Amino acid sequence: MSGSAFGHPVLGGLVGDDEIATIIGFEAEMAAMAAFETALAEAEAEHDVIPGDAPRKIAETLARFRPDVARLREATARDGVVVPELVRQMREAVGKPHAEHLHFGATSQDVADTAFVLRLKPALSVLDARLGRIGELFDELGSRFGPRTLTGLTRMQVAVPITVGDRLDSWSAPVARDRSRLHTMMPSILAVQFGGAAGTLDRLGSKGPAVRKSLAARLQLQDAPQWHSQRDRPAELGSWLASLAGCLGKFGQDVALMALDGGEIALSGGGASSAMAHKQNPIAAEMLVTLARFNAVQVSGMHQSLVHEAERSGAAWTLEWLILPQMLMATAASTRIALRLLGSIERLGKRDG
Amino acid sequence: MSGSAFGHPVLGGLVGDDEIATIIGFEAEMAAMAAFETALAEAEAEHDVIPGDAPRKIAETLARFRPDVARLREATARDGVVVPELVRQMREAVGKPHAEHLHFGATSQDVADTAFVLRLKPALSVLDARLGRIGELFDELGSRFGPRTLTGLTRMQVAVPITVGDRLDSWSAPVARDRSRLHTMMPSILAVQFGGAAGTLDRLGSKGPAVRKSLAARLQLQDAPQWHSQRDRPAELGSWLASLAGCLGKFGQDVALMALDGGEIALSGGGASSAMAHKQNPIAAEMLVTLARFNAVQVSGMHQSLVHEAERSGAAWTLEWLILPQMLMATAASTRIALRLLGSIERLGKRDG
Amino acid sequence: MSGSAFGHPVLGGLVGDDEIATIIGFEAEMAAMAAFETALAEAEAEHDVIPGDAPRKIAETLARFRPDVARLREATARDGVVVPELVRQMREAVGKPHAEHLHFGATSQDVADTAFVLRLKPALSVLDARLGRIGELFDELGSRFGPRTLTGLTRMQVAVPITVGDRLDSWSAPVARDRSRLHTMMPSILAVQFGGAAGTLDRLGSKGPAVRKSLAARLQLQDAPQWHSQRDRPAELGSWLASLAGCLGKFGQDVALMALDGGEIALSGGGASSAMAHKQNPIAAEMLVTLARFNAVQVSGMHQSLVHEAERSGAAWTLEWLILPQMLMATAASTRIALRLLGSIERLGKRDG
Amino acid sequence: MSGSAFGHPVLGGLVGDDEIATIIGFEAEMAAMAAFETALAEAEAEHDVIPGDAPRKIAETLARFRPDVARLREATARDGVVVPELVRQMREAVGKPHAEHLHFGATSQDVADTAFVLRLKPALSVLDARLGRIGELFDELGSRFGPRTLTGLTRMQVAVPITVGDRLDSWSAPVARDRSRLHTMMPSILAVQFGGAAGTLDRLGSKGPAVRKSLAARLQLQDAPQWHSQRDRPAELGSWLASLAGCLGKFGQDVALMALDGGEIALSGGGASSAMAHKQNPIAAEMLVTLARFNAVQVSGMHQSLVHEAERSGAAWTLEWLILPQMLMATAASTRIALRLLGSIERLGKRDG
Repeated sequence: MSGSAFGHPVLGGLVGDDEIATIIGFEAEMAAMAAFETALAEAEAEHDVIPGDAPRKIAETLARFRPDVARLREATARDGVVVPELVRQMREAVGKPHAEHLHFGATSQDVADTAFVLRLKPALSVLDARLGRIGELFDELGSRFGPRTLTGLTRMQVAVPITVGDRLDSWSAPVARDRSRLHTMMPSILAVQFGGAAGTLDRLGSKGPAVRKSLAARLQLQDAPQWHSQRDRPAELGSWLASLAGCLGKFGQDVALMALDGGEIALSGGGASSAMAHKQNPIAAEMLVTLARFNAVQVSGMHQSLVHEAERSGAAWTLEWLILPQMLMATAASTRIALRLLGSIERLGKRDG
Repeated sequence: MSGSAFGHPVLGGLVGDDEIATIIGFEAEMAAMAAFETALAEAEAEHDVIPGDAPRKIAETLARFRPDVARLREATARDGVVVPELVRQMREAVGKPHAEHLHFGATSQDVADTAFVLRLKPALSVLDARLGRIGELFDELGSRFGPRTLTGLTRMQVAVPITVGDRLDSWSAPVARDRSRLHTMMPSILAVQFGGAAGTLDRLGSKGPAVRKSLAARLQLQDAPQWHSQRDRPAELGSWLASLAGCLGKFGQDVALMALDGGEIALSGGGASSAMAHKQNPIAAEMLVTLARFNAVQVSGMHQSLVHEAERSGAAWTLEWLILPQMLMATAASTRIALRLLGSIERLGKRDG
Repeated sequence: MSGSAFGHPVLGGLVGDDEIATIIGFEAEMAAMAAFETALAEAEAEHDVIPGDAPRKIAETLARFRPDVARLREATARDGVVVPELVRQMREAVGKPHAEHLHFGATSQDVADTAFVLRLKPALSVLDARLGRIGELFDELGSRFGPRTLTGLTRMQVAVPITVGDRLDSWSAPVARDRSRLHTMMPSILAVQFGGAAGTLDRLGSKGPAVRKSLAARLQLQDAPQWHSQRDRPAELGSWLASLAGCLGKFGQDVALMALDGGEIALSGGGASSAMAHKQNPIAAEMLVTLARFNAVQVSGMHQSLVHEAERSGAAWTLEWLILPQMLMATAASTRIALRLLGSIERLGKRDG
Repeated sequence: MSGSAFGHPVLGGLVGDDEIATIIGFEAEMAAMAAFETALAEAEAEHDVIPGDAPRKIAETLARFRPDVARLREATARDGVVVPELVRQMREAVGKPHAEHLHFGATSQDVADTAFVLRLKPALSVLDARLGRIGELFDELGSRFGPRTLTGLTRMQVAVPITVGDRLDSWSAPVARDRSRLHTMMPSILAVQFGGAAGTLDRLGSKGPAVRKSLAARLQLQDAPQWHSQRDRPAELGSWLASLAGCLGKFGQDVALMALDGGEIALSGGGASSAMAHKQNPIAAEMLVTLARFNAVQVSGMHQSLVHEAERSGAAWTLEWLILPQMLMATAASTRIALRLLGSIERLGKRDG
């Protein structure tokens, strides 16, 4: 165990998600920050806030810019956020006379929040597509096994019989609702953050809103007033991530219970034991429970972060950094594992069902 | 301190909410359960599931029915839910021949979940109205003090100046968004639960969906397939309650910080100290922080409850009972206290702002 | 569902604990606050801080003092704590000339924290005794069924056989360790809180420590420097309560799993279903899981409260009031229910084991 | 933001801890697992469970063994734990006839849990030493500034004056108590885990306890009966980590508040802002709050893990892996940052104090 199981060389394969890790990882983060600064320069030149030849120089420089990561790390330990040193390095690379036109009127939080949203967008698209596929696989199982009989189980006791289709509904309907919630939430969540030092775009005078609108359009994000100290959208995202992981966790828990005597489910490719060669452990099902409970824990932190004092709370904002990315990773892993588990179901219902 | 501060004879006045307590309290619960059984009998008679003269007898009996609470308490300790004994008492009161037509085809969870939704509906209406009033009060403060200067504060340090209006926006915009989220969420949340023993309405045969639709209409709830083991909607409600309390908590935290030196805010009617007569403690502001952090803790439990095994998990369901009502109470208290705090703001911004 | 399941007229019988409710309830709270003020007057008179005839007058008055609860409630909503108004009422009852000698040099937190500790002491004794009895019952089960064979279950799959004694050990050993932790923790936890306005006993001059020592002795609590803003001990208590409920939750979860097919356990007196007469639901086992998960949620709030700003954080302190009493109630209920569940086990291991 | 801020190339410098990362990291994990297998072979040979020449061959092989990490990762995604494939690779390296004598009678959990404890031991030693140094620095500040006057602050309002020494006590006393709790807890926490397939050491017959005792001695750990499904000790460790981070979080919160007007504290080396050159942000103080709140969130997960079903819960155990290492990292970072913050305090109390 290192600090994080998601980034662990071995455990990452169990509880992580390579596709999402790439989308939200450090290289993508640096690229998103560069994209922010480039689009900002373009938007500001468009509105004559900075000279018209600045954007090209900035864009060309940032296209080949590679940060000195060791210095970023060292400075971030002091500054609490990577942006001041990153902007310093970027400006040094841009050189005179346009160095001062990079990051003009912006603050660290504009860069960091928007760069997160820029990576969140493709990540949510991946999740959306997976949820579509999960729904299809539930439907396929319904087609194959839906009418078979299953032992209804209430309060851990045998109740009246149900059908496989009944239980499939209890797995698929919440996931479908969460997909629908995603679609409702996305436009609001994927909004640019741009406010300057204390949220007022004070350096841009009356041009602030127009520059922000242009910036959002260039980044293909929603335009919105700054939300630097209004963290309801990150919390909403966290709640959604926990809900989805939780709903998939119910699926996993049920499969693990069904696997216990095995009469009503057949799974291919379970996990090996180092002590008992005969066992076929329902690892994927267990991991869905783990990830559900993990995100149920984490969601608390996203709501603690809502108490974000004044114009910027370093304490509350950094708490989001510690929690939200790993919630995204956990839920992504849940969808990945759910797909694998769905693919491994060879039979639902009794053999003679 | 007794078990719950919300129901504490003295603390209830500080952190509770009398209006919501009445709406969701025990008497309202018993009334909602009776309303469910009455409407169910009517819906079932409408569809010839039970005799046509049963509903009137059931309705008349339940209209004057008073449960033996001591026996309910004793039986609930054994059965895990109040419904079996409550139905037994109700049937005894109804007598032959219609006793058996009461609760026909239903299960405990149908009664308990729907009775919660029935009380939730007026409770959410109260919150909705309060949010409207909170928005108005923020607007009024904006009209009175909006252009005044305020010290922008980032990372607990003086930043550039902002206006009172800027900070008011950071308080009111998230609350307005949460009100909008409430409106989006309400139809889905306020759905009837009716599934019978294991969710299949097995006793009603092909008439199940029609009876459920009629039941929903009679209770003025949304019709929806049973969701007894699909707890995404309770979790969504919990997330919303935590979000709203959290957004109001940011308001409270900011006011508490502003009250610290007092140069930029004037409040009337703060709390007394038993040791220092000169003090005017910003109690309302502090309580908003407390309730925000409380619900940020609780929301975790609602997501743990998503791992609801099979057709009914006594463990996961009861966990909701322990958590969701107090989240509702805490958020209601947040809105009550926010209104009081808003009413006590005599000045925002510097005296000479 | 009212605000709290613990205080709910019906659910309180399921998830509450009458014995502990009485020990920590409102009447006991008022009595403990009166005991604090009486002992304080005695300690202060002993050290000539107040006149020698004050304690008798104060003691006699408080012995028959009944607070005006409605006014307490109203004032607490304003002051954030009951003590200012309670002391005002007490002083009014004491009258001149000794009114001013009541609560001399003390502050609200001294009264509230110490009054909690005074009730905690008998509550922990009850838990301690129950843990002793739980250990005995585990031992008795071991004597009766220990050598029988049980299906070892790892990762929800049949593993190698174990004995009933092996599984009993996995239930009893953690509970025994928690009992031992309780004994280690108690002296530190059961400490007086006495610091005055800002913790310095400023009104008592050099006599502060001596008065505090006498106060502690009179209340049969440990003497200790004030800990008004040092909340590690309440957090430690919360962790212990969560640990114990969690360890009993494992016992409950295992019993619920064993009850699923019933071949390896026989229980008497399970819960009824309103829909299925044949069922015997393992309610007690489920409730142990519920209470474990509930306190696992709550423990987070006790640790959030550690961030207690400056000499007194109204926000963090009140958060404790919302959380710690219900944790105590939940864990007490766990021990009560565990005793009941242990008493209902008629057989462990296979019938022919 | 990648999955984890602790392992993030840049943020790791802010919220991580290089020293602890090395102690608990992947290479150390592999080394600890090899140490377990080597010591087990030695203990088993000592008691004639395996041939006397097996340990040397195993020790020599494992001393130069380098796992195929890609295959470990792939297999762990299937098996849920690294050990089956790791043991397979180790056995392949050992070759005949001693391959079968490696890991004899052990199970995955024996290796994984003990390998965690082996790394925990030096990690806790580091924390212990840092706590000693933190205590010294608090004492030094007391020597320099203790008698100066400080504004007592209760409920975010000016209360009576206190001394710097009074506030220093409120920071240092809880940390000292947590150090004392660490010393009490360590022997119990640092216990070997060895139980075999289902905890009964079934393959070792009557020699099980003796082999385990020898294994513990060789690893310099406490001998103890297997605790594979008894997770009170991991939960206790988690509670302690959260308590310590929380107590240091109070220190950070107070410093951040004092830095707000700066009249009563002077700090060197604050963080830069990308928008406001004049600012000196109290980053270290903020991070202490962040890490306190983070671990207050996480501790909930460690208590959820107590509900560990039967002889091994893959779901509950993996949840620990996701949470406990990052709690250790967060608390380690808290101590590192507290030391830095203490070193940066140039003055406490008013300039003319």
